[in-house]
Amino acid sequence: MAATLLALYKRPDGGDEALGAFWRRYREEHMPLIEKVPGLRATRIFNVASHYAGDDLIAVTNMEFDDQAALEAAMSSDEMRAAGRSLREIAPGLLTLVALESSWE
Amino acid sequence: MAATLLALYKRPDGGDEALGAFWRRYREEHMPLIEKVPGLRATRIFNVASHYAGDDLIAVTNMEFDDQAALEAAMSSDEMRAAGRSLREIAPGLLTLVALESSWE
Repeated sequence: MAATLLALYKRPDGGDEALGAFWRRYREEHMPLIEKVPGLRATRIFNVASHYAGDDLIAVTNMEFDDQAALEAAMSSDEMRAAGRSLREIAPGLLTLVALESSWE
Repeated sequence: MAATLLALYKRPDGGDEALGAFWRRYREEHMPLIEKVPGLRATRIFNVASHYAGDDLIAVTNMEFDDQAALEAAMSSDEMRAAGRSLREIAPGLLTLVALESSWE
């Protein structure tokens, strides 16, 4: 069964300028590193269009792997470590990262 | 273009007992209300299998609508208001709810 890695990004401090800088670096620095991660089958990036409750998220990225084992292997790869380092610089303290499994439905 | 409503749930205080109570009420009380929301095409519920960074999420629910207008109509429906009331009781302060739109990819 496919496994999903979900990355959630909170709004950076610093208004539109900080938000623009985040997106620019995310595209130009972080995504090229993510694309090198072994076993990654598909990546979908979403903007938050509306916010209804809770944390002020600005973006959500959905990364698909063949199964949980492939996801776990990816998480411990050098390529993912490099991608993680770039994110800690681009979006310090703003990332939530979880692996999902289908529930009872 | 399809529109996605994403609900993210943080871990409740109170250990396994509180977590079990959350899941039970989520399934038995909240989901029957969500299923009545007009325009909702599909609902997928995920457990968090692994946590790598940031907030301690326990579940993610993905709700699909035909387009942004259908999602907005659903958000202002009586059925969604009833579902929201149930959640504020079941998971007070634990929900983040956002609408997503595809980004540049």
